[in-house]
Amino acid sequence: MEFLTNDKLVIVGAAGMIGSNMAQTALMMGLTPNLCLYDVFSPEGVAEEMRQSGFDDVNITATTNVAEAFKDAKYIISSGGAPRKAGMTREDLLKGNCEIAEQLGKDIKTYCPDVKHVVIIFNPADLTGLVTLLYSGLKPSQVTTLAALDSTRLQSALAKKFGVMQNKVTGCATYGGHGEQMAVFGSAVKIDGKPLHDLIGTPAFTNEEWEQMKVDVTKGGAKIIELRGRSSFQSPAYLSVEMIRAAMGGAAFRWPAGTFVKNEKYDSIMMAMNTTLDATGCHYTMPEGTADEMAKLDASYEHLCKMRDELVDLNIVPAISEWSKINPNL
Amino acid sequence: MEFLTNDKLVIVGAAGMIGSNMAQTALMMGLTPNLCLYDVFSPEGVAEEMRQSGFDDVNITATTNVAEAFKDAKYIISSGGAPRKAGMTREDLLKGNCEIAEQLGKDIKTYCPDVKHVVIIFNPADLTGLVTLLYSGLKPSQVTTLAALDSTRLQSALAKKFGVMQNKVTGCATYGGHGEQMAVFGSAVKIDGKPLHDLIGTPAFTNEEWEQMKVDVTKGGAKIIELRGRSSFQSPAYLSVEMIRAAMGGAAFRWPAGTFVKNEKYDSIMMAMNTTLDATGCHYTMPEGTADEMAKLDASYEHLCKMRDELVDLNIVPAISEWSKINPNL
Repeated sequence: MEFLTNDKLVIVGAAGMIGSNMAQTALMMGLTPNLCLYDVFSPEGVAEEMRQSGFDDVNITATTNVAEAFKDAKYIISSGGAPRKAGMTREDLLKGNCEIAEQLGKDIKTYCPDVKHVVIIFNPADLTGLVTLLYSGLKPSQVTTLAALDSTRLQSALAKKFGVMQNKVTGCATYGGHGEQMAVFGSAVKIDGKPLHDLIGTPAFTNEEWEQMKVDVTKGGAKIIELRGRSSFQSPAYLSVEMIRAAMGGAAFRWPAGTFVKNEKYDSIMMAMNTTLDATGCHYTMPEGTADEMAKLDASYEHLCKMRDELVDLNIVPAISEWSKINPNL
Repeated sequence: MEFLTNDKLVIVGAAGMIGSNMAQTALMMGLTPNLCLYDVFSPEGVAEEMRQSGFDDVNITATTNVAEAFKDAKYIISSGGAPRKAGMTREDLLKGNCEIAEQLGKDIKTYCPDVKHVVIIFNPADLTGLVTLLYSGLKPSQVTTLAALDSTRLQSALAKKFGVMQNKVTGCATYGGHGEQMAVFGSAVKIDGKPLHDLIGTPAFTNEEWEQMKVDVTKGGAKIIELRGRSSFQSPAYLSVEMIRAAMGGAAFRWPAGTFVKNEKYDSIMMAMNTTLDATGCHYTMPEGTADEMAKLDASYEHLCKMRDELVDLNIVPAISEWSKINPNL
């Protein structure tokens, strides 16, 4: 088999539903023959399933030891957060998973400071990604978060609405935070070559329908739980492996990624921007949209700032002014 | 995207863990842009996950209506059996799933008699495949069952034992039934070019180790449950999609398939043989092995006959002499 690279790829949280799917996806894509499955719960059963699938010229290791897992790691995808359990508040989840992200960042710094790219997908990913970046010491271009699902949800919803194949719906993007405060951008969208904005407000697609669709997109994750009886796991797994494939120099990633932003408008936050992701890492430009869309993006940023500030209050991260002492790249 | 075919592929049992993985695997392999997810439980959540993965030039439909699902179907993979529940005997499972297989066969005959190939993987697959074939009216070359996992387990176990990559272990095959009565054939196996039989009985690989390995291979499914806390789903899903890919004219399937056998030695049974699987369907030759291996295969056949005869007693299938009235191809 031809592989994109021989570099070691580590899947963190590999024993779980998302992680085990990422392992299979990475193997099917032929990313690397050097795959390590790491989890605090033994991922040996997942490794066995992969071996029994007959992916036969790859070396699949499984470990619960982080030092062993991260040794020589060049790429990491982490779905290794704790799920929200009954009785947990949103703040409990934020605190718990950001503490996991802090440790992940520190482990990267300790065991694989030469890692090339890290993709973070455990919730809330905008914050866990930010915390991982801070403590890892990596450059902003080297740590991204999964933010694409909102954009693919928008594409899928529009394709269904207009009865066209998904690839006939172009320019879909949601920016800002990956949560209900995300900013859905419609101004670049085309349906079979026709600008969406020419359709909005017509009998074919009323303003009310468009407003409802935007709400539905931001609640797409809840819809999957309603339909499947469980959280989505295939789509986040698949898309995050597409991200790491792009970072390895493979096919370009077609969707916005969550990236560290520090510019004249937004200060030290992780959020979905107009990004490119390739072997040079992640780079962004500011999204362009209508005044209303830009206002939504500002609001999404403000919402993320509040959560980041909660992390300061919780002593998980210091004040922003201190960040460069921990990670000179920020 | 380039597809292997435009023919309609139907995943039966698509809402389940195996079925949903098959959907993703088929999309990733680029088999066809015409994918239908069918289940008695709504597979709409799985379809949504696939759409949200951004597989964007495919038409993914989801339905609980078998007539709609099977209309124009050219390829079918079914994992749509009922799982064994607490309190169920082995016979309950056999009866329940073979009744499902009977209905599946009849539905194929009613709604898609022009289907090209059907892969059956729900347990006990040797029997459910046989019953499906009988009632579908299809030719023996058109219905296969998943039997490869035992062979990949043997390959994986030997690769681990000898510390080589799996592709350095060649000729692994298990024949007969897909259960603890399977016949593990070692006589064609080579480890990095060296015949396994030259290694068995040496200090590097004692007779006891080899006997234990054969037992472990036949219990590989139970081992996954022990390690993962759940039945394997990724490896059966992946391998069954590789089978349908081969039937579509894609890459040759490298492992034994379960196929209908009626020859001078074995009468009207579905079992793993030395098979080829390609666009012309499945064809087999008798496995070649040592006297001991052939005796094991005979024993596996006898075991399958007992289960087939149970189906006669249960009135799920008539006596073999009557089969050609139901399916003239048998």
